[in-house]
Amino acid sequence: MEAIGKATRGQRLDPEDVTIAYVGGGSRQWVPNLVQDLALSAFDGTVRLYDLDVEAAERNAEFGNWVQEREDATANWTYEATGSLDAALEGADVVLLSTQYDPSETFVHDLDVPEEHGIYGAVAATIGPGGIFRAMRTIHDYKRIAARVREHCPDAWVFNFTNPVHFVTRALYDEYPDINAVGMCHEVLHARAHLADLASEHLDVDAERADVSVNVKGINHFTWIDEAYCDGVDLWPLLEDVAESEAGTREFTPADLEDASPFVDNWQVSWELFRRFGVLPFAGDRHIVEYANWFLHGGQEGLNRWGVKRTGSDFRAKHWTPAESEQTTDVEAWLAGEKAFELEASGEAFLDILEALAGGESVVTNVNLPNRGQVEGIERGAVVETNAVVRASEIRPLAAGGFPRPVESMIRGHVDTIETIIEAARDGDLDQAFRGFLIDPQVRTLQTEEAAELFAELVAAEEEYLDDWNVADADVLDGVDVEI
Amino acid sequence: MEAIGKATRGQRLDPEDVTIAYVGGGSRQWVPNLVQDLALSAFDGTVRLYDLDVEAAERNAEFGNWVQEREDATANWTYEATGSLDAALEGADVVLLSTQYDPSETFVHDLDVPEEHGIYGAVAATIGPGGIFRAMRTIHDYKRIAARVREHCPDAWVFNFTNPVHFVTRALYDEYPDINAVGMCHEVLHARAHLADLASEHLDVDAERADVSVNVKGINHFTWIDEAYCDGVDLWPLLEDVAESEAGTREFTPADLEDASPFVDNWQVSWELFRRFGVLPFAGDRHIVEYANWFLHGGQEGLNRWGVKRTGSDFRAKHWTPAESEQTTDVEAWLAGEKAFELEASGEAFLDILEALAGGESVVTNVNLPNRGQVEGIERGAVVETNAVVRASEIRPLAAGGFPRPVESMIRGHVDTIETIIEAARDGDLDQAFRGFLIDPQVRTLQTEEAAELFAELVAAEEEYLDDWNVADADVLDGVDVEI
Amino acid sequence: MEAIGKATRGQRLDPEDVTIAYVGGGSRQWVPNLVQDLALSAFDGTVRLYDLDVEAAERNAEFGNWVQEREDATANWTYEATGSLDAALEGADVVLLSTQYDPSETFVHDLDVPEEHGIYGAVAATIGPGGIFRAMRTIHDYKRIAARVREHCPDAWVFNFTNPVHFVTRALYDEYPDINAVGMCHEVLHARAHLADLASEHLDVDAERADVSVNVKGINHFTWIDEAYCDGVDLWPLLEDVAESEAGTREFTPADLEDASPFVDNWQVSWELFRRFGVLPFAGDRHIVEYANWFLHGGQEGLNRWGVKRTGSDFRAKHWTPAESEQTTDVEAWLAGEKAFELEASGEAFLDILEALAGGESVVTNVNLPNRGQVEGIERGAVVETNAVVRASEIRPLAAGGFPRPVESMIRGHVDTIETIIEAARDGDLDQAFRGFLIDPQVRTLQTEEAAELFAELVAAEEEYLDDWNVADADVLDGVDVEI
Amino acid sequence: MEAIGKATRGQRLDPEDVTIAYVGGGSRQWVPNLVQDLALSAFDGTVRLYDLDVEAAERNAEFGNWVQEREDATANWTYEATGSLDAALEGADVVLLSTQYDPSETFVHDLDVPEEHGIYGAVAATIGPGGIFRAMRTIHDYKRIAARVREHCPDAWVFNFTNPVHFVTRALYDEYPDINAVGMCHEVLHARAHLADLASEHLDVDAERADVSVNVKGINHFTWIDEAYCDGVDLWPLLEDVAESEAGTREFTPADLEDASPFVDNWQVSWELFRRFGVLPFAGDRHIVEYANWFLHGGQEGLNRWGVKRTGSDFRAKHWTPAESEQTTDVEAWLAGEKAFELEASGEAFLDILEALAGGESVVTNVNLPNRGQVEGIERGAVVETNAVVRASEIRPLAAGGFPRPVESMIRGHVDTIETIIEAARDGDLDQAFRGFLIDPQVRTLQTEEAAELFAELVAAEEEYLDDWNVADADVLDGVDVEI
Repeated sequence: MEAIGKATRGQRLDPEDVTIAYVGGGSRQWVPNLVQDLALSAFDGTVRLYDLDVEAAERNAEFGNWVQEREDATANWTYEATGSLDAALEGADVVLLSTQYDPSETFVHDLDVPEEHGIYGAVAATIGPGGIFRAMRTIHDYKRIAARVREHCPDAWVFNFTNPVHFVTRALYDEYPDINAVGMCHEVLHARAHLADLASEHLDVDAERADVSVNVKGINHFTWIDEAYCDGVDLWPLLEDVAESEAGTREFTPADLEDASPFVDNWQVSWELFRRFGVLPFAGDRHIVEYANWFLHGGQEGLNRWGVKRTGSDFRAKHWTPAESEQTTDVEAWLAGEKAFELEASGEAFLDILEALAGGESVVTNVNLPNRGQVEGIERGAVVETNAVVRASEIRPLAAGGFPRPVESMIRGHVDTIETIIEAARDGDLDQAFRGFLIDPQVRTLQTEEAAELFAELVAAEEEYLDDWNVADADVLDGVDVEI
Repeated sequence: MEAIGKATRGQRLDPEDVTIAYVGGGSRQWVPNLVQDLALSAFDGTVRLYDLDVEAAERNAEFGNWVQEREDATANWTYEATGSLDAALEGADVVLLSTQYDPSETFVHDLDVPEEHGIYGAVAATIGPGGIFRAMRTIHDYKRIAARVREHCPDAWVFNFTNPVHFVTRALYDEYPDINAVGMCHEVLHARAHLADLASEHLDVDAERADVSVNVKGINHFTWIDEAYCDGVDLWPLLEDVAESEAGTREFTPADLEDASPFVDNWQVSWELFRRFGVLPFAGDRHIVEYANWFLHGGQEGLNRWGVKRTGSDFRAKHWTPAESEQTTDVEAWLAGEKAFELEASGEAFLDILEALAGGESVVTNVNLPNRGQVEGIERGAVVETNAVVRASEIRPLAAGGFPRPVESMIRGHVDTIETIIEAARDGDLDQAFRGFLIDPQVRTLQTEEAAELFAELVAAEEEYLDDWNVADADVLDGVDVEI
Repeated sequence: MEAIGKATRGQRLDPEDVTIAYVGGGSRQWVPNLVQDLALSAFDGTVRLYDLDVEAAERNAEFGNWVQEREDATANWTYEATGSLDAALEGADVVLLSTQYDPSETFVHDLDVPEEHGIYGAVAATIGPGGIFRAMRTIHDYKRIAARVREHCPDAWVFNFTNPVHFVTRALYDEYPDINAVGMCHEVLHARAHLADLASEHLDVDAERADVSVNVKGINHFTWIDEAYCDGVDLWPLLEDVAESEAGTREFTPADLEDASPFVDNWQVSWELFRRFGVLPFAGDRHIVEYANWFLHGGQEGLNRWGVKRTGSDFRAKHWTPAESEQTTDVEAWLAGEKAFELEASGEAFLDILEALAGGESVVTNVNLPNRGQVEGIERGAVVETNAVVRASEIRPLAAGGFPRPVESMIRGHVDTIETIIEAARDGDLDQAFRGFLIDPQVRTLQTEEAAELFAELVAAEEEYLDDWNVADADVLDGVDVEI
Repeated sequence: MEAIGKATRGQRLDPEDVTIAYVGGGSRQWVPNLVQDLALSAFDGTVRLYDLDVEAAERNAEFGNWVQEREDATANWTYEATGSLDAALEGADVVLLSTQYDPSETFVHDLDVPEEHGIYGAVAATIGPGGIFRAMRTIHDYKRIAARVREHCPDAWVFNFTNPVHFVTRALYDEYPDINAVGMCHEVLHARAHLADLASEHLDVDAERADVSVNVKGINHFTWIDEAYCDGVDLWPLLEDVAESEAGTREFTPADLEDASPFVDNWQVSWELFRRFGVLPFAGDRHIVEYANWFLHGGQEGLNRWGVKRTGSDFRAKHWTPAESEQTTDVEAWLAGEKAFELEASGEAFLDILEALAGGESVVTNVNLPNRGQVEGIERGAVVETNAVVRASEIRPLAAGGFPRPVESMIRGHVDTIETIIEAARDGDLDQAFRGFLIDPQVRTLQTEEAAELFAELVAAEEEYLDDWNVADADVLDGVDVEI
């Protein structure tokens, strides 16, 4: 049994001197959150903010150091901006990855081009034609980052926040199998919080997210649970009741959602799948529908009926943030004193993980890692999402078991697409990438020639981001009437 | 490693005294063919024709004995008709299974009901909504037959010709794991004959089917080859040329096919998939499109464009034959002397197999058997189709290897549907059957509620054939506006 | 993927009212320890002590209630003795299993009979000819207990302390696949404590067991680690140094061990295997040598050379305790006031697990469970030992990865013996049991006929404990010159 | 599923012009046999005899051309001798591999050195300490040959006759995964002939080897059957009778075997294992005992008792032939006219295979190939032995199923040794090789330090043949009192 990942044992963090390299350090959303979390943490250290947009990184560094001057900043951190990835990574203990391209030149096509062919995607973040192209734009960058990590900080803990998390984390391991990389996502955290709300509402408790434990498993944004407890009390009977209740069987109209944020999760897709398969999806519905694609077939109305509002490409372009979440930070305004600033923790799991790694209280939380037993029925090495126990120098996933066959079948099918794209990326083979694209269930709703057209149009629309792919020799682009 | 099948060693046939039980012995197509093959064979023996329609069986028995009186009938066979399955099976050496229900009450719905939901199936013989319901109507009958085989002739060689061959053969093993059952299909034989024609046309040879050898693998009606030889000459370069030639890239219009038989195979789907995936489908295109469902999306025109003409439900009702092939036999007319009769062999592989089992020349031919290694990447126990070598008392499948990942992925997905239905059949659990139905790629083109409606409508249309399923307690039928 | 174990979700313990059924409640060692642990715990409840030897159970109940009267007993427990297993189990929340037969009639033969054939076993607790017979005496009893658990308390948490832990825990699941059973063993705890000592000695720390975390995996008494930390500091470099140091390369003589307890672990076998295979055995050396049997070949001297002293059959008969550990309790003397009694916790992991299940602090500790992904390379369903995270209503094993091939090969070989015996037990088939016996590496040092003789002699010596095995029809006993 | 072997389709042989490269062309036994088989074959062509001992090759070439001048030589062959491997291989259609080192410097130690440690090997041809060293001397040579085949004749059919056949064939694939290599062995042929004799003796038939068909599987020299037919008649009842008869339960004394050839197979080991496990070993007993090592424990007497006579190292040195079979050829005497020469076929399967590949009659015969489904329970890629069907341009193994668990366990254990050695060979890592050596059941009868001594002594004795191994850095050789 050949090793997967972590050939070296985990590296102990020194809480008094942690060096963090932040790739994508110009981020308007994540960095300000991190700055606050760190200011309130049990660590001291340095953050190196690396970004192609050095100005944005400098703005964030300025903000970080400004926050440190506050009295309620209990920890001691220094921020530096850099335009050199090598400098940022050299000797780092922790590497954070969170980048994205200008959505107005990329994401916008991920949704709009497929829509012209009748595929009304909900968010295109992880899978489906748009998600696959997002991956194709990103994989080679992250393989290059992994190669630099191997060179500059081979034992560093690497946390990837960039979507599509499974593709990107898998690409890191494909380049550097011994990397200590973990894919991070807060969807499961949100879902646990929702279960805490349900428990508080229906049972005689006052629960919050930390009280809810689940047995979660799947692939990122297509995770499922088959056990849930609130402070040890089995929530399954409650979940079964909710699924059959009015709250679990609401129908929405476009009007109902007109003013809603696309980030609000109405859970109707989840309850429907729970009733159908007996296990509960555990990510936002807008992500789930990209995998269980039959919710996409009715256009906007069909999608809205299940309480899902498309995370439209126009919205994205307006609110460009790595996490695709609503913009809640405003660094310039804070620095300029135009907006009141209050230091508060973000609630993300990342700091808890860091503290546990440094010898603090251990935590059990969801992570994305290559499968080495945590999920049954899914191939070894595919990046899966389950809980892990995190403690001093260790992130160890739990053996979460498997799925009812029909659910396993869907997941395996998507893993085949992911692995086919990863394999294609090794040589930049667009024809092989198209094979992975063609077996995606969203794409399988198109006639065979139309699938090739859609593929070619996406290549054409995003060509400048696809330099690592061999466009010139791709058979799939021949005979398709698309100019590239 | 638990045993699959054949716990007892194979039974030696005595060529001078073979007892064949024919279940479905009233068949208008297959029995007359068999009668002629046997009359020209190296065997003597008795054929017991069992059919619910005893009259039809008696007509065939009369025909069989009439043929035996001819001088050119070189072998010695006696035919008997019976309405008792037990009597037919008792002590039989060989059992042939070939039955079907009145298509005007069954098949007609398999195509027409899905079409109302936009699923323009090509033949609905093996998979897709219609194929699944065909299986659901048939599985329990064949489990009962398997139980009788265990009782009356446990070591008999059982040959199943009834569609869907994988579902039905799998059901036989599900009931009686030690059964010596083999699923039979002539699609691969036809495809080999086509390769012989291509070789004759393009290479300097005069080839026929027997000269062509292939490495075939997959599931019934979704089989693929990755090697082909004509008398040892590698045909791959020729196949690659044909795929790129005019003959391999024809587009058909509805007018082109107006007068064509649906049984004519134009190979355009096969060449397209060959160009795409690098391995060649090896069953009739009308069957392949039910699995690679993207060829179905354009309605009649879309299907015709690839040279496939629907085996329409009207056609079926008119030409009711077990093999869905064109009616070429006319027993009454022959017996009445209204039509000239000429004794000739049918070209089916069955007789060759029987002769090999009895110690004659060994043959290599395609069979359907539970997977115990012959196909890589497909689960153990699933019924797969590959070549087998047949020799005295032995039918041993070849280890045919695996598939490119995208093709394997498609096959595994269909196997998941098949296995889910087989599992559901154990308790007659319609909700579990629906889960297998829901993940079928044809069904995945429907909105979730529409899938349930389609399912309910098919149950309603064919209810009298679904006695073994628990209709009363099925959640999937609740809340669907279909009267059952 | 069919489910293994825990079909129902875990049962929440109510810390104010826990009912514990203790099977083997007359134990002189374990029960007194438990009484003290419970008296100092955060729980209240009832303990039902069941034993065939009701008097012993009553003595323990008296002791339990006597302890409860002490002021320093902070928790509230009531003890009852019973001779009815059904009464003990009815509605229990927790079941403890810890039994054994009179060693003077059983264990004594496990060591002495093989020794006559040159197999100088060290302890015969888990594997090898003696360990296999210990299993054969025990399996059927525990299958009966599992059946009663299913009837009287199907959701109870069942903790098995009886050796051989893997055989016995596997037998519980073989009878009742949904049982919530966990095999318990303190070998890994002792080894962690030893690593804490090494860290304290060689590094500048003051460590105890709880500070040491390891990635442990294997089968009971043949567990290995490939990572170890002390408060997050990687211990691997230290372990490699120790293995090469004088302390890691000591040779012992019989004289060195003359007055030593067999329970003292000198670690020389462990260091030798660590040097050889690069992963560190993590159970007492006296157990490891039963698997890595080449340490047994030199008789007493050969064994002693590695610091291992046989846990002799004479010793056992004198010091009959379920755990084979040194007798440290003396209930009668305490009750009679002849010996001063001081209430103190035992340090076993069991109470920590119970508290975590009831919603207290979660713990990570080693457990034995059917493999569903926690160990790579070992078959699904085999009982393996790894860490698990225990929290409210959940015991979830960690995905611990695999082994270097030669180590995996040894473990798989032993699993084959275990599974063969489990399979044989279903029908009481002694010939099948012999096949599992014959491939054991200790037995493979005998000529083929001698192996059969040894088997027959063990059957003869322990026949009254082998009622569930079909002695009369066993071919292996024919033609062997042993009277049975 | 990644491809194993044969990425290119098979090469068609032209029966009028076959070029054969014979590596080891100075062989005294195999080449004269081949010369005669070819002279009587349906082929014409050229044989290039390559040998380090060019004189021996020239002698054989002279003999080959001499035979061709005879009138009864119906085919047309030319023989050439060469000392250049490159020249021999360039453009060859068929490559035969059959080499060995001077046994007086190699084999002699394989048996004698272990014997000093109490391991009384029977032949040391394939496994056990001697067999492993034979492999270690040979693997690197064959990897170099595979590299030359890739360069000079990448599509050639390569037939390996050199022992240990599984190690050597595996090494060829390890170097060049797409090689068309097949491991050849006549043990299964001899066993089939023996079954024909039994059938002739006990049933009313006149059978020969070709009439007997078996379902054979395992690894070379440790193959088993679970089905056997003589012209389709099930032989199992006869085999069960023989196993219990006097003939199946003979005991031999050293005196009985004093004048016997070690190549006579008395089948007593086979019948014993058949009685024990229910499946029949199907290679010579002298080979079987090296795997089922418990037959070796009684020294010469113990081995003889089972009818096995050691193929002594003295015998080997005297009768040096690649096949270790009795010398039956005498080229010089024939050429000199001192001995009458009669042209006759050898009965080896090789010519039948060649004819089938060239489009002649297809055959089913045993071959050694990487496992891609032919044997269940054994890992993918390990070289296994099963039947294959050979026809024009194709050698396709049969899916032969699995084993009873205890037999599978033994085979898997040996595969672990083989794969560990193959892995060790990649870097010449002697410590890794020792790990594979240490888990061999013959070696596991030694105390741990004695195993290292034995290993070191074998390295010392054969060092000049172990140039590709890193002797200098091997930990296993440290601290062992052996001068190397």
